[in-house]
Amino acid sequence: MSDNTFGKNLKITVFGESHGTLVGMVLDGCPAGLAVEEGMVERELDKRRPGLDEISSSRREADTVEVVSGLFQGRTTGAPICMIIRNRDVDSTPYEAIRNKPRPGHADYPAYVKSGGYRDYRGGGRFSGRMTAPIVAAGAIAKGLLSLSGIEVIAHTIEVGGISLKKLPTIDEIRRERYSNPIRCADPSQAVKMRDAILQAKNVGDSIGVVIECIALNVPPGIGSPIFDNLDGDIAKILFSIPAVKGVEFGAGFQASRLRGSENNDQYFLEEGVIKTKTNNSGGILGGLSNGMPIVVRAAFKPTPSIALPQRTVDLKEMKDVSLTLSGRHDPCIVPRAVPVVEAAVSICLVDHMIGSGAIPEVL
Amino acid sequence: MSDNTFGKNLKITVFGESHGTLVGMVLDGCPAGLAVEEGMVERELDKRRPGLDEISSSRREADTVEVVSGLFQGRTTGAPICMIIRNRDVDSTPYEAIRNKPRPGHADYPAYVKSGGYRDYRGGGRFSGRMTAPIVAAGAIAKGLLSLSGIEVIAHTIEVGGISLKKLPTIDEIRRERYSNPIRCADPSQAVKMRDAILQAKNVGDSIGVVIECIALNVPPGIGSPIFDNLDGDIAKILFSIPAVKGVEFGAGFQASRLRGSENNDQYFLEEGVIKTKTNNSGGILGGLSNGMPIVVRAAFKPTPSIALPQRTVDLKEMKDVSLTLSGRHDPCIVPRAVPVVEAAVSICLVDHMIGSGAIPEVL
Amino acid sequence: MSDNTFGKNLKITVFGESHGTLVGMVLDGCPAGLAVEEGMVERELDKRRPGLDEISSSRREADTVEVVSGLFQGRTTGAPICMIIRNRDVDSTPYEAIRNKPRPGHADYPAYVKSGGYRDYRGGGRFSGRMTAPIVAAGAIAKGLLSLSGIEVIAHTIEVGGISLKKLPTIDEIRRERYSNPIRCADPSQAVKMRDAILQAKNVGDSIGVVIECIALNVPPGIGSPIFDNLDGDIAKILFSIPAVKGVEFGAGFQASRLRGSENNDQYFLEEGVIKTKTNNSGGILGGLSNGMPIVVRAAFKPTPSIALPQRTVDLKEMKDVSLTLSGRHDPCIVPRAVPVVEAAVSICLVDHMIGSGAIPEVL
Amino acid sequence: MSDNTFGKNLKITVFGESHGTLVGMVLDGCPAGLAVEEGMVERELDKRRPGLDEISSSRREADTVEVVSGLFQGRTTGAPICMIIRNRDVDSTPYEAIRNKPRPGHADYPAYVKSGGYRDYRGGGRFSGRMTAPIVAAGAIAKGLLSLSGIEVIAHTIEVGGISLKKLPTIDEIRRERYSNPIRCADPSQAVKMRDAILQAKNVGDSIGVVIECIALNVPPGIGSPIFDNLDGDIAKILFSIPAVKGVEFGAGFQASRLRGSENNDQYFLEEGVIKTKTNNSGGILGGLSNGMPIVVRAAFKPTPSIALPQRTVDLKEMKDVSLTLSGRHDPCIVPRAVPVVEAAVSICLVDHMIGSGAIPEVL
Repeated sequence: MSDNTFGKNLKITVFGESHGTLVGMVLDGCPAGLAVEEGMVERELDKRRPGLDEISSSRREADTVEVVSGLFQGRTTGAPICMIIRNRDVDSTPYEAIRNKPRPGHADYPAYVKSGGYRDYRGGGRFSGRMTAPIVAAGAIAKGLLSLSGIEVIAHTIEVGGISLKKLPTIDEIRRERYSNPIRCADPSQAVKMRDAILQAKNVGDSIGVVIECIALNVPPGIGSPIFDNLDGDIAKILFSIPAVKGVEFGAGFQASRLRGSENNDQYFLEEGVIKTKTNNSGGILGGLSNGMPIVVRAAFKPTPSIALPQRTVDLKEMKDVSLTLSGRHDPCIVPRAVPVVEAAVSICLVDHMIGSGAIPEVL
Repeated sequence: MSDNTFGKNLKITVFGESHGTLVGMVLDGCPAGLAVEEGMVERELDKRRPGLDEISSSRREADTVEVVSGLFQGRTTGAPICMIIRNRDVDSTPYEAIRNKPRPGHADYPAYVKSGGYRDYRGGGRFSGRMTAPIVAAGAIAKGLLSLSGIEVIAHTIEVGGISLKKLPTIDEIRRERYSNPIRCADPSQAVKMRDAILQAKNVGDSIGVVIECIALNVPPGIGSPIFDNLDGDIAKILFSIPAVKGVEFGAGFQASRLRGSENNDQYFLEEGVIKTKTNNSGGILGGLSNGMPIVVRAAFKPTPSIALPQRTVDLKEMKDVSLTLSGRHDPCIVPRAVPVVEAAVSICLVDHMIGSGAIPEVL
Repeated sequence: MSDNTFGKNLKITVFGESHGTLVGMVLDGCPAGLAVEEGMVERELDKRRPGLDEISSSRREADTVEVVSGLFQGRTTGAPICMIIRNRDVDSTPYEAIRNKPRPGHADYPAYVKSGGYRDYRGGGRFSGRMTAPIVAAGAIAKGLLSLSGIEVIAHTIEVGGISLKKLPTIDEIRRERYSNPIRCADPSQAVKMRDAILQAKNVGDSIGVVIECIALNVPPGIGSPIFDNLDGDIAKILFSIPAVKGVEFGAGFQASRLRGSENNDQYFLEEGVIKTKTNNSGGILGGLSNGMPIVVRAAFKPTPSIALPQRTVDLKEMKDVSLTLSGRHDPCIVPRAVPVVEAAVSICLVDHMIGSGAIPEVL
Repeated sequence: MSDNTFGKNLKITVFGESHGTLVGMVLDGCPAGLAVEEGMVERELDKRRPGLDEISSSRREADTVEVVSGLFQGRTTGAPICMIIRNRDVDSTPYEAIRNKPRPGHADYPAYVKSGGYRDYRGGGRFSGRMTAPIVAAGAIAKGLLSLSGIEVIAHTIEVGGISLKKLPTIDEIRRERYSNPIRCADPSQAVKMRDAILQAKNVGDSIGVVIECIALNVPPGIGSPIFDNLDGDIAKILFSIPAVKGVEFGAGFQASRLRGSENNDQYFLEEGVIKTKTNNSGGILGGLSNGMPIVVRAAFKPTPSIALPQRTVDLKEMKDVSLTLSGRHDPCIVPRAVPVVEAAVSICLVDHMIGSGAIPEVL
């Protein structure tokens, strides 16, 4: 069950390695006729490129995407869309020394066990954050499809190292402010504190975690499938595919467990003929199905595991305890780069379920 | 994409309705030769039966399970195992009045949209908690397979209505205490307070939420699959299939986002030739793969949505705002009944991934 | 990869054993709102019931079907439809003696290897022709869906023991004549000879093979999917699931390999604004997609392997050559019983692909 | 249900277009540790390259394969293996004129319907025989895995335009002779006649069909899965993915329907402790499972549809009957190029089922 594919109707298969020739993906099931304009994919990739601010890795990748199949005369044809992104700024030297010394917090040790030692250990191989670049490329297509149905998917940072937003931002504030700062935070003043916290961690060779929220607007009700292909279950599944995600919650989430039913239940009312709920503690999903309210999901990211501080590990060849100090270029924090990845993942999952529910309009 | 199947190697398909003839499931992919002893399935079902304590629904179901295929002379044959559980104590009367009035917090409204109105609305149809009975039946088989590999899956309640454990219990405490009280809590003194909180909510016609933790011991390292069939992603997915789950986290979970990398990284050491980590903030999963440490996952359940207090909703036929007061028999809280469901769900998912990783021993 | 499910959009999972409690199936993905009238499923099952003519097994099964989920007030709800058929006229005595002596032409030997000896050997277990009863039950639902799109699926016998039709029958002849005789043959005079051939084989304790053709009328063009989910590939796959099928061909089939391109190519023309082909050597499928012409597929069935004549086999326990003489009740020929099975299998596959192609009308 | 993936355990996804940038595939699920030697993939691709003999298309493609992921230090890592083959000798000019005039026998018309007109019509797009190049590349990996289990997969031509072998060749004759002639025929004297027949057809602007047989030696018994994931069903399915295949049969195949049970049943005997059958009319598969005898499958290919003779078709834009005369470079016959494709397809399917049955040895 080595499986690098997500989805049933819109299927994404990711391939490549962090320090290999390239990373890429095949997106299968995209309806024919979607216009894919010049720069549509690059714009999304640019949002996750490293090296844009001090808070990111200094690895510099142009992330030029090559669409090698599935488009014809600027439109999708229904054939699988393959996109490849060459790896260029690769320095594998630091990885030789730690080949048999699994880095704490990374997948090195279980990956070693799983592959019987035949893994590509350079840069984490396919367990690298670099594998999210093709997810973002696929997400650009998914977003194009969603926009035809008037659906908007917006992710933003709500907490960094325990520093959170002072108040719940409105959708307009999120839209307006998140790109005004490198944190992708709707509250610019808190964003300054968040950035400081990241730089403080960086300065001592440490790293810091974040919580990212993603909102999908205008998803029609009835999307998803009980019992086992829940919309929330699949969104959670694809979010856990993003390296460092350790928790996922919808609407009131964990806080819902501390509410009473009378507080948590979202009561219905009519507004201009449309059924809405007064609150949105469900996060737009009930019984695995969208209910027409905004879908609200939050993903907790652990601090990035690559830190400069010395750590204890085990030499897998010699089977003895050793100390490990990492060099290399790493992100002290996963923002801003994870934000477009979350948007892409949620968008891909939404399209998958909407096709399955017959809710993607003919694009022609 | 109506999909009622979970799994790739061990696949469970659930069918039936809360107030229909029966509920049941087909479990496909179970290896041949597993001994299924008399009472093995019933014992698990008994743990989720209603009517066992004041804190549960008064619906009384014997939940007698009939194994109708896949067993021969007391052992599995590799053929699909079908089990059915007849519905007996069914009273659909209260549901006629609310047929077109979606209950807040329930799946009624999106289910109505999805089915074009042709759903079985009685008792929530297949969006009922009753659909978890076949999951528990399948879980009994999964647990039988896991026990052959020395794997133990234990769920317990760690928080009810905001009342949590005073300290982290040991595995031995959990094993010893959780069945000593109807809350399935390892801390009997806190369990008394939790039960009081449930009864208080019940007395005012309200309901209350919980957090359940599940631990899987002795899972070998290397189980799971990057990038999209993560072990954590699939565990989360199946947990979100359980009605009322709104959040899932592994190890330090959301709290990990507030730690620094140096605190959160689990450093390796050798203990009698076995690679272990000093802490288990990862919850036993790194890069979508098990790392040999206990798998620790928590699911947040919202308060059960059926409450006796009046609520606002919309009449879907007449499209007007109306008030709704529910009668019927409901659980004021999802414990103790959800505890075996969580264990079953995690067990099914683990077997699925272990077969995929070649880690289920020949059972013969 | 024990897999008892077919389909991606309309999925059928079959369970049960020939001499177990029951056989049954779960059909998942059927749209909500289809009216399932009294007797609709039974009528199809009656067509494959044994004991109707001398040319069939004398096993007498009422084949009463119980729909235990997925219907409400006479219509499908979108939930999985489970149907069960109890086994009643079971006599497992003859199977004890041959438990370790695989019958030539049956699946006994590879099934023994696959299950490590833990199979249900009675009546062939799940390798029995009885497993086709639930396929026919599912096919009744599939036919109901197809009829809403004006699609008709008709199977008929075209060859028995080398005796074939004198000339290609018209659709009207097939519709009119196939139920006039126990062979399900559109040429009643040849049907007499075919039946004689079957009885001759039966009288000497032998059996005889057949070729069944299936035609699907009014399938719109563009149904199916390149490269690997061809409509023809999936029809072939489900036909090979029917016990005794050894060959499948479309249109001119094997004969096409003996034609020149200029003879075999189906040239296009317009008839009242509709694109048609002058010939139909493609059997209605090009490049894995329907082309709007009738889909024509033929399945070759080997002679039923259960014969009364003595045969050589190997005792698997004692590992020595032995002789084997079978008793029990068997079909000397697979017609008429296989005819509705072929129709059901093709119908299920068509609905699966039509849903995937967005071509099943909303049934409401 | 646009699906370009085959397999459950070893999964191949094909992408690209005949006249696009490239064709390629992702092979997911290959165990880690398989040595992939220099030239191993190219040698297989060379067998299907065009332009090798007068009987093939004059399109000249070097078919240089680039392995862009999944290999590290000459071995597989368990990660998805992506290979790409650039298109170089592309001349799309002839396709402009016939853009709206579907070629008889090709997928043009249903592909046009399916894609709403947004297909890549150049060279047949993804309905081209060129899409079989990545299948052959994947097959090279599959063959490498099979050879570790001692399994050999051999395809050869047994009939061309009605000219067949004079007698059934032995395995040794097939091994020795099939590469001695451009027909890939084990009977060199018949191969001369077959080649003449192809050239005769070519000379008059016509084409000719063939039957290819494929034999898999040393497949252990018990591989495959009832009821719906039959080994024969899946082999048939993947063979129908090869353009121009119109029929598939196993063992005695269609001829079995003309035999009596006493003739067709393969009786068992012991040979040096191994269970064998005297005949192999089953083609090595019973009940969807391998039985340890050689797997024998035959695929009937229609004459290649591109012929130089004038044909009738319909202009899809103007909706009127028109005449069509094709230019361009085409194969008058599908041999020798289809032979390695059949081997590759069968090999991929075998590995998929062997992994699912736990029968692929650890490659390390």
